[in-house]
Formats: sequence, structure tokens, C-alpha cells
Amino acid sequence: MAGSTYGTIFRITTWGESHGKALGVVIDGCPAGLELDESHIQKYLDRRKPGTSSITTPRKEDDTVEILSGVFEGRTTGTPISLLVRNTSQISRDYSDIATCYRPGHADYTFDQKYGFRDYRGGGRSSGRETIGRVAAGAVACRILEQLGVTVYAYTRSIGPVEADMNRFDRTTILSTPTAMPDIEANDAAMKYLEGAKRETDSVGGCMECIVEGLPAGIGDPVFEKLDANLAKAIMSIGAVKAVEIGDGCQVSSRKGSQNNDCYRTNDGHIIKQSNHAGGILGGISDGDTIIIRAHVKPTPSIFQTQQTVNTEGEEIAINIKGRHDPIIVPRAVVVMECMTALTVLDAMLLNMTAKMDSLMNFYIKKK
Amino acid sequence: MAGSTYGTIFRITTWGESHGKALGVVIDGCPAGLELDESHIQKYLDRRKPGTSSITTPRKEDDTVEILSGVFEGRTTGTPISLLVRNTSQISRDYSDIATCYRPGHADYTFDQKYGFRDYRGGGRSSGRETIGRVAAGAVACRILEQLGVTVYAYTRSIGPVEADMNRFDRTTILSTPTAMPDIEANDAAMKYLEGAKRETDSVGGCMECIVEGLPAGIGDPVFEKLDANLAKAIMSIGAVKAVEIGDGCQVSSRKGSQNNDCYRTNDGHIIKQSNHAGGILGGISDGDTIIIRAHVKPTPSIFQTQQTVNTEGEEIAINIKGRHDPIIVPRAVVVMECMTALTVLDAMLLNMTAKMDSLMNFYIKKK
Amino acid sequence: MAGSTYGTIFRITTWGESHGKALGVVIDGCPAGLELDESHIQKYLDRRKPGTSSITTPRKEDDTVEILSGVFEGRTTGTPISLLVRNTSQISRDYSDIATCYRPGHADYTFDQKYGFRDYRGGGRSSGRETIGRVAAGAVACRILEQLGVTVYAYTRSIGPVEADMNRFDRTTILSTPTAMPDIEANDAAMKYLEGAKRETDSVGGCMECIVEGLPAGIGDPVFEKLDANLAKAIMSIGAVKAVEIGDGCQVSSRKGSQNNDCYRTNDGHIIKQSNHAGGILGGISDGDTIIIRAHVKPTPSIFQTQQTVNTEGEEIAINIKGRHDPIIVPRAVVVMECMTALTVLDAMLLNMTAKMDSLMNFYIKKK
Amino acid sequence: MAGSTYGTIFRITTWGESHGKALGVVIDGCPAGLELDESHIQKYLDRRKPGTSSITTPRKEDDTVEILSGVFEGRTTGTPISLLVRNTSQISRDYSDIATCYRPGHADYTFDQKYGFRDYRGGGRSSGRETIGRVAAGAVACRILEQLGVTVYAYTRSIGPVEADMNRFDRTTILSTPTAMPDIEANDAAMKYLEGAKRETDSVGGCMECIVEGLPAGIGDPVFEKLDANLAKAIMSIGAVKAVEIGDGCQVSSRKGSQNNDCYRTNDGHIIKQSNHAGGILGGISDGDTIIIRAHVKPTPSIFQTQQTVNTEGEEIAINIKGRHDPIIVPRAVVVMECMTALTVLDAMLLNMTAKMDSLMNFYIKKK
Repeated sequence: MAGSTYGTIFRITTWGESHGKALGVVIDGCPAGLELDESHIQKYLDRRKPGTSSITTPRKEDDTVEILSGVFEGRTTGTPISLLVRNTSQISRDYSDIATCYRPGHADYTFDQKYGFRDYRGGGRSSGRETIGRVAAGAVACRILEQLGVTVYAYTRSIGPVEADMNRFDRTTILSTPTAMPDIEANDAAMKYLEGAKRETDSVGGCMECIVEGLPAGIGDPVFEKLDANLAKAIMSIGAVKAVEIGDGCQVSSRKGSQNNDCYRTNDGHIIKQSNHAGGILGGISDGDTIIIRAHVKPTPSIFQTQQTVNTEGEEIAINIKGRHDPIIVPRAVVVMECMTALTVLDAMLLNMTAKMDSLMNFYIKKK
Repeated sequence: MAGSTYGTIFRITTWGESHGKALGVVIDGCPAGLELDESHIQKYLDRRKPGTSSITTPRKEDDTVEILSGVFEGRTTGTPISLLVRNTSQISRDYSDIATCYRPGHADYTFDQKYGFRDYRGGGRSSGRETIGRVAAGAVACRILEQLGVTVYAYTRSIGPVEADMNRFDRTTILSTPTAMPDIEANDAAMKYLEGAKRETDSVGGCMECIVEGLPAGIGDPVFEKLDANLAKAIMSIGAVKAVEIGDGCQVSSRKGSQNNDCYRTNDGHIIKQSNHAGGILGGISDGDTIIIRAHVKPTPSIFQTQQTVNTEGEEIAINIKGRHDPIIVPRAVVVMECMTALTVLDAMLLNMTAKMDSLMNFYIKKK
Repeated sequence: MAGSTYGTIFRITTWGESHGKALGVVIDGCPAGLELDESHIQKYLDRRKPGTSSITTPRKEDDTVEILSGVFEGRTTGTPISLLVRNTSQISRDYSDIATCYRPGHADYTFDQKYGFRDYRGGGRSSGRETIGRVAAGAVACRILEQLGVTVYAYTRSIGPVEADMNRFDRTTILSTPTAMPDIEANDAAMKYLEGAKRETDSVGGCMECIVEGLPAGIGDPVFEKLDANLAKAIMSIGAVKAVEIGDGCQVSSRKGSQNNDCYRTNDGHIIKQSNHAGGILGGISDGDTIIIRAHVKPTPSIFQTQQTVNTEGEEIAINIKGRHDPIIVPRAVVVMECMTALTVLDAMLLNMTAKMDSLMNFYIKKK
Repeated sequence: MAGSTYGTIFRITTWGESHGKALGVVIDGCPAGLELDESHIQKYLDRRKPGTSSITTPRKEDDTVEILSGVFEGRTTGTPISLLVRNTSQISRDYSDIATCYRPGHADYTFDQKYGFRDYRGGGRSSGRETIGRVAAGAVACRILEQLGVTVYAYTRSIGPVEADMNRFDRTTILSTPTAMPDIEANDAAMKYLEGAKRETDSVGGCMECIVEGLPAGIGDPVFEKLDANLAKAIMSIGAVKAVEIGDGCQVSSRKGSQNNDCYRTNDGHIIKQSNHAGGILGGISDGDTIIIRAHVKPTPSIFQTQQTVNTEGEEIAINIKGRHDPIIVPRAVVVMECMTALTVLDAMLLNMTAKMDSLMNFYIKKK
């Protein structure tokens, strides 16, 4: 079934495999009149590009994006925007080792069970390279949100046992550290931890957090298209994510109501909350406060240790995975989280424009 | 925007407010030929019915379901099944207190921001009574899953600090204890804890867990319609849920790959995993193992203490909430989680039937 | 599969069978703040009600609508509007005659082939009573369109060989004649023709036309969600419709370009077309001119003559249909065409609000 | 809004403009295991390719398709299939003439009204080149249908006043004549008629017909996803189509029931209809008989005559269209109709696989 389309109004369809000719995305429903060129998108793709530090795979890909349609004289036309990234660095090595066996923690077995066979080269469609389409489309969503006064950014909250100290939060550090942590000291500690894990031929999990600022109240649709429900889907759909939290998340289950409720007050004539345990969402609708989402990401399943598994003949075997793999997924996934959040929030904003008769009257009667 | 429809093939549309005339659901896409009568659905509705113990609201509702269409001579016809539950115990008290102010932790403020006004009686559409439609539809989904050899059940994992001991797991206890815990000792401790909270006019959060057994491998669709992504959305869409975990969930972010990977082995000619950190899902597709989902639920926001808030005139005020409220949401939400899981899993199974050319050939060529 | 939902933003789900307990519709995505009560809907239902003239079935149904949710203090709240119509006049006659055989021109055989069996009482879901949900929802759509300055009305264009003379067009006649023709003389001729057909125990086909006035230019979305494409689907989905034309329709295939193009001119500073062969739609997008749609409707398949058919055992038999049937479908279908058109146009207008960055900026930046 | 996606299970998203870098389509939801290479698709694209006869534009495009993803070792993998066709023959002429004025019969004015501006080069997204994506995807659908025993073919039924004589029907003639007529004599007469129209610098309309053979009974979903409703949408979404008929189409409106009903009989133990006025669809569901669809196509709006129009400044002007244009749309649109029909029928077949509990039991219980 068709699972590669996301969004209702701002709707994206991604395609492509790790070792195919190319990957890309079609954005359908982008409003007309947005100034857009490749550089706006490339900036985001560069953040998920491999080969930029000691903790990313040495696979060298430029991941250069080409706009094939939907932009005319520097502005979007309202028609589908097709974005293409050619694969250039597929090493045509012998894949017979993974072609016939199931790597632990990967989707090899489940793809075979579902489809009868799979493109085994580098994980095929289940590879992290699949996120290129998400990021290219998310870059466009972020650009629109910016113009609507909404800011989305994500960062690494923790790597293994090393957590960023939010008192030292520095947004510029996110883009300048290899870990994408907003705390330079945590970055340094995490890098040491990661080097240790690499030496042990092991990999490491981590937690990432995404913030949405400037989102007006009223976004999200009861009861199934709640903003938090759609964010949970968006973020959980990123490979390796195993848990999603909104606001205080897991902590609420051991709290009392008197501790967890956010009371209201006024500020300069505006109604605001006195605290933000809710993470900016009440009843599935944004409350005007900062949106906070956290995702827990498992360690890279490809580790350079002997593992027990089974081959496609059903025989128990031991395997040693070769290839080029990051010891941690999180730093390169941060921009993916940012993009999936942006896509979700933008689509919810677009859907929100028809919530009230007043909005229709303003749009169609004034226009006449 | 239309947010009350869920599912692609097995598609439900719920409707109704806490104090309206009725609530209900239309199930569209139910396969023809399923034996069905009201009793199959009533059984599930009775589990979320209020007034059954000291920790549920004393509001007395029979929540009797009526099948209005889609069933003929005891079997589903393939056409929409309309299910209706009349509201009978709305107390027509004076709602002027909550009509003009924003209760902390509720959706009053966000509904007003979105729609310009709201049905303030008992929370309107944001009331927990909204879940009646989910449960009525989920009961039908569960019945189909049963016939396909798939079992879904949920229970309370923890209440405040009191956690069920899974070594004492007893499935029968889930339906027989007021807490819906699968461990009678934890139930007793939790009941004591809840009585204390009630005395303090406070409320309590908790954690619930849902298990899917017997699901074949291959269910779920990359990359946006992953089984875990859709489960996350389904569960996060339940009011008061603030975090969703799959398998080991949040724990994976502090793990190493060598600890977290589930190695494969064979058993009686079948390929199985040696452990289940993944919670039965790899690459968004079921792996044949048990599916495990956890949800963290915030404390009931209605507490009988004075709280600071703002009224619709923008004035800071203090409120004291009246009415009938559960001190904890979890025990009655367990069946909702079960139903949302069943709806998600069934829809994914239906979508999966077209994954392979072989399936099409078997269906259409054999038929000829 | 779920086929009873229509629309993307203004989304309706209909349910119910000819001889079930009730029929109805859930409207999801109706903007908040619309003044609405049962009388607005009843007016439309009364137009499709049987038993009002010599050319409709004598089945007596009040078809009284009840609003069950989504309206509070006389206005829509933005949450789902559930509308219910109880069946009251099902004659519990013996259906064994049609239960086991396939009536020519009906959906008996195809339902059996699809679902394995069918609710045979009065056609079940394939009965014309199914349109109650469409009309109830369409009444709400019409009410919104009215406030946006858009008028939708349909009428009978021809009955058998009798065609309305558009030079005698009188809109008031549509609602006051049994044929729903806009030309009183044609109505009289058609009534005579129909009486003749009834005497011959035969039925008659006809053509209906729908007009949309006041629709702004720019509505409809290339390339698959074109306004004419969606209108064609909407109208063809009405039982018994076998052809749909837009503007000059079938005539264009024997025309030359110089005859068929509509040249532009200005009028009071507005750009308008000098003719309207296009029927108000160019490239799938409304051009500001009157929208014109025509539908050709087959004769009622239930005729009181002996017909050859086959029973469910596969034996050739002759049948004589009993029951209460209209000799023509068109006059009661006119309001259904009007409603399906309104639903389609309104949804397209709602979707159009996000076509331009300017619209987003006006909505979200001004709001701040 | 996103209007370039079509289909629910077999879902395509097309993109590209007449004079952009490329055009293409992403097919999502194609079952795994289908043998597929470029040649299967190229065959269909060649049928809509320009420059092949005196009645098509002399624009020379190879329209060579490249498969970028979703196929591995010669078989579809179940993941999205991205198909790309580069534009190679855009003449970079001066478009200032059409950039600032509205060509009669084209979508210039409506695109400007909707989006605020448009890609004016060759019609941009509203160009007939948009159909490349439809045909590329439809070729894959046709290939699957073939394996399921379903044949789809379309042809030109009439050109201006020249109609094919179905007694001389010869399917091979469709692909070998420039008119795509199934009757060589009609082809010759039509060619003469077209040459005359060209001399008069005029264009001509026509009618095309599509046949589906071998479709099992039971396909299509009441009440809004009826097979005929979806076919009407699919075909009406093709540029220049102004009317769609199913079976006897427009003729039914002047018929009596006794003439129009198709009686049943048996043949070799199978139930069949004695006639096929219905065109193979009853109650929106296929009845096992041949599906017949007709589309009426307007004359090419680009004619080489002086026409009155208005420019973007709102001034009345006269224009003379330059460029390369077919004098008739139909012959090259025939393959588009075939492809849209195939896409619609295949998707309906895929959706139909879940109509009965029996199907689910066979699929999931047998599998175990």
C-alpha cells in the first residue's frame, strides 16, 4: 500500500533507495508565490549529509538537490515541486553476505516477509538515506513557517548517559558541534563517549528534542488529527525512533494533578500559561506556548561485532557486518526531526484556515 | 477541518459531545459476513462506563449501544455500520462558572481560540465521553482480529508510584480490578494511593500498556505509514496521553547497540527473535513477535482545589471546579487504548493484502 | 472498502438502508459559527420526500431530521454534525421474491457478487433512500455557500422526449411543479407523457441540469482534483446517472475550435467571457462564469412488466416486481444533484484558501 | 491544495510543466514482484509522443523514460517507483505575447486567478505534456491488469462529423492509424476532414471510447466510490474532456425502462446479461460484462486565427497564437484515457480484496 505520502494540504511523496539511481520528493500543495531556489533546500540537506565528522559514515555524498518543476522565475507556482538528489557514492561491493541473511535490528527480515524479497544493497528503502526526501521537503516547509513567524529547531538532548545541560543552552552550538548538542561541554563529553563506543565496535543511542516557537493557539484538529497525535506519528515514522514525548512526557504518569496542571495568567493583555508541562498542546490543539517534543532513538543496529542470526534458508549463522556506518544515529537525525515537525505543523496550520465561518467570509466576501 | 475520521480501509467517523443528545460512530469498510450484534459491542462499552467503582465518576450512564445500519440477519453487509449511544444522565446544572473561564489542563482555551466559542457543558467534544465512538468501533475491530488469530489487550501498568509486578501478571485480573491492573497486589496498593489522593482533593497520573499477540510478520507500510508511527498517532490521540513508547521505548536512548539488537534464531523451523527490545516492529513492519506499546497518561485535570486562571474577558480569577470527575483517567482509558490499537492493526492488515503480486494473482486468477 | 465518505475538508459520511432502522450522515469539518437548526435541513429533505405527487411512490415517509451533535446554542461548533432520519414506513412484506433473484437494472446481482449476500429489503444500501444523507449534508453546504454569495440550483431539463424550453425559464416553477421543470408548459406535457408510461406499466428516463452562480474564479485544483472532474464524480455517484456533461458537453466533439472557444472581453473593469461554451470551467478551475452541469438519468429499473432474469440458484426465471416505485427518478433526484454539486463546490472553495502565500500571510500575520 | 495525486492503494503523483526541466510520476503502492523495465512504459509513452504524423505538433520529443527507484533485479520491490522524462525540445522563443494575455479556451486566466501568476511557457502545468506522468503510471497499471486477465483499450470513436463504423471494428487499426480509429475507412475520411480544418487554420473536436474486458463482477464501492463515479472523475480530469458517458450514456434519458433494462440469462452455468445498455456497471459495481466509457473532447483551443481577448492589464486586445499545436487532441489523448481507466480499475480491484470476511480468512488464516 502507498505509504510514502505525508500531509493533507501540503503533501509530500518521497521515493528512492540507498543504492538506487537517485532519491527525491514531490511536494504537492505548496502555496504559490514563495521565493525558492536550490540553496534554501541544500542548506538543510547539508546538515544530514554523511562524512562531515568522525562520528558519521565516511560514505561521501554531495547530496546535491535539483529542482525539476514547480518553480518559475524564482517563485513557487502552486504546482508540484519535484526535487531530485542523485546517488553518486554507492560502492558496488559484493552484497551476497547481507543479501541472504537477516541483520539484527534492521528491517531485512520484515521487508522479506512483507514483499517476498528486498533491495538488499545498503538497506534499500529502509536505509537512512530515505530521509533525504523528508529533509528536502521539510526545508520548504520551514521556509514557509519562517514567513509566518513560526520557528522550528531540533537538537540532541542526550547521547548514551551524557545529557545536555539546558542551563548552558546555546542554539548556535547545535549547528557547529558534531553531536548537534546545544551545550558545548556535553558535546565534548559525548564525543569522548562515542570514541569509546567506536573502539569497542559498538554503537550508542540518544535522545533528540524539537522546539516550535511562535505557533499561534488553535492549531490541530480533534479528535484524531490532534496536533500531538500527528507529531507522534511524524516523529515515530523516523527510522530508529522508539518513543515520543510531548511536554513533560513520561513524567506525567507519576504526577498529581495539582503538580501537572498549567494555570493561566495574563501578560500584557494576552492569556498565557504560568508553566508549560503540557508542551504547548491542550486537547490536541496548540495553546500558543512553545511546543516541545522529544524522541528516543535506538543505537545504530549495524555494529562491527559477531552476531547470531538466521539466513534466508532458515539456517542459524553468525554474521559480521561490513560497510560504512555511523556509531550513532541522532546527530544526523536531528534535522529530520526538525523537518518532520515543520511538515506537520505547516499542514495543521493550512487545515486550520477553514475552522471558522468568519475566516471564509473574510476570504471570499472581502475578495469580491 | 475534518478530524473525526480514522483509518483507510476500516474507516471510522466518531461524533458527539458530553452533554449532547447522543454519541456514536459510523464504521465504513467493515468486511461483509461478520456475525455481529449489540452484545459484542456492549461488552467493550461497559468497560469504559462510569460509575462502576469508587475511583470513577458517579455519573450514571448505561451507555447502551444501538446498531442502526450495516447489519442484516445477524451479519455485516459491507455497508456502513452506524452505532448510537444516547446520553441519559446529563445533569442540567448551571455551567456559567466554566462557560466563561479556562480550566487549567483542559481544552477550554484552545477550543475557544480555534473555533471562536465552545460547547462548555462537560467539556463538549473534548470530554472523555468522546471515546465512546472509538470503543464501539474498536469492539468490532477486535472481533475481526480475533477471527484472524490476533489478540489485543491492554492494562494499567502503573498508577502514580505504584507499578504492576509483571512476575505476578494475571490477565483475568485486568477485567476484575477497579484499576485494570494485571497484578492484584499492585491493584490494592494503587487503590490505597488513590484514596489518599482523593482525600487531598487531588488526581493521579498513570501508565498503560497494550499487547498484540498473533500478529503475522509483514504488517505496516514504509515510510510514513509504519505500524509504530500509526500506533503512536492512535494512542497519542487519546485525551491526556503525553508519551508513547514501543518495545523498550525511552530506554533505548541510553543503550548500546550490542545490548539493544535482537538476534535471530530458529524455533521449529520458524525464524524468531531471541529477545524483543524492538517490541515486535522493525523498520515500521511487524516482525511476528509480540507488539508492546506503552502510554503515559496525565492526572485528571479536574481537581477540587482552588486554581488560578483567566476568564473569557481576560481577567485573572480563581476557580473551584465542580462536577463529577474520576481521580485517575487510566483504568477507564485502558479499553480505549485497546480499541485504538485494534483499529490500527486491523487497518494495517487490510492494507497489507495488496503488498505482493502473488496475492493479487491468488485472489483474482484463482477466483476465475 | 470505505466508500461512504465524500469530501476532504467538508467531509460527509452517509449510512443507512432502505428498510433499516434509520439513515443519516455525519458532517465533519463544518466551519464553526454557522447558524443552523433542523428547519434549514428539513426544507431540502422535503424536496426528495416520496408521496408528494402522482409520479412519486406512495410510500409515506416524513423523513424528519434530528440534529444529534455539533450544534450548540443555535450555531455549529466545528465538531461533527450527526444527522438522523428514522425510517417509519417500511412495509414488512414478504421479500422472498426479490431475495432470491436478480432484478434487471438493479444492483442485486453486483452486491451479491461483491459482498456474498445483501440486504434485499427495498434494495438495502443501493436504494434511492441512501440519498437522504447526501441531501441532509448538502443542505448545510448550500447554507454556507449562500453566505459566501454562491447560489446552486438544479432542475429537470427533459423527461423522455419532452424538453424544457429555456426561453420560458422560471426558477420558481422548479419547486412548484411535480416534474421540477423550470417551464410550466413542459411540465404539463411531461406529466401527460408520464401518465401514459404508467398506464403502460413502464418507466421513463430524463435529464437534469445544475447551475452554480456567483462562484469566484480560481476554484478547483489541477490536475486530478479539477472542479469538473470532481463534479463528474459527484454527479455520476448518484444512482441511475449514466452521463455527465459540463457546459456544452457532448456537443464539443463535433465542433471546430473557432466555434467553441469563448473569447474574453471586459465589463465594468472585470474580465468576462463573451460566451460560455466551457460551462464556467477552464483547465479544471472556475473562470468566474456560471457553472453548468447536466446529468442523464436512466428510467426507473423497477417496472411492472414480466422480465426475464436468473435466481440465486442460477436458474432462468421470469419475475414481476411488486412494491411502490416512481415511474421516473429525475424529479426527486434534482435536489440530490443540487446537494452533490454544493458539497463539491464548497469543498473546493475551502481547499482553495491555501493556494497562495498571500492568503497565508493575511490569515496568520494579520491575526498576530 | 495537493491535486496531483490519484488513487488510494495504487497511488500516483505526477509533476512537471511543458517547458520545465522534466516531467514525471511517482507510483506508490505498486505490488512487489512485478517484472518491469523501461520498455514496458516506453511503449505507452510513444503512443502519446508528438511529431509522429501530419496531425500532431512538429515539436520533437523523444520522451524517454528513466526508472529511478522501486525496481530491483527487474522486479518491483513494493516501494515507490519514480519515473522521469526529461524535456529536450523546448524552444526558448519569446513568450511575451502569451505571458501577458489570456488565450481563449486555455487555462491562462484561471491559473492567474488561482495562483496570482503562472508559468506561461507552453501552458506550464496545464499543457497536454502533463499527461506524460499519467501515461507512464498507467502503463504499469495496464501491465498488472494484463496479468489479472483484464484488458483495457481505447480508440477514437469520432472526429468532427466522421464516426467510426463499429461493424468494421479492427483493434489493430487503433495503433496503426494516425487518428487511432478502429476503422480504416473512417480514419481516411477523418484525415481528409482534418486537413481541411488545418487549411482553414481551425481545429476539431472528437469522441473517444474505452473498453475494459475481463473485469470480474464486484468491483467498485457504494456509494461515493462507485466504479462509474471514479471513472467519470478520471476521464473528466483529462484536459479538454467536457462529457463522460457510461454504457448507453446520454441516450438513457429519452428511453423507457422496458427498453433500457438488461435482462439476465445463463450461459454455461454463468449468469450474464442479455444486453449491455448499462456498460458493465450496476449500482456502481462491475457486473462482469464489458465496461464501456465515452469521452467528448473539445477542439484544440490554440487556433491560428485572430481572436478577441484581454491582457493582464485588463485591456481588450486581439491575439494571434503562434507555436506548434495539434489540430485535434483526441488521437494522442486516447492512450491517456486508456491509462486513466486502467489506474481507476486497478485501484478499485485492490480495494475490493477486503470486501468479505472470507477473503481475510483465506489470506491470513491459510497463511499461518
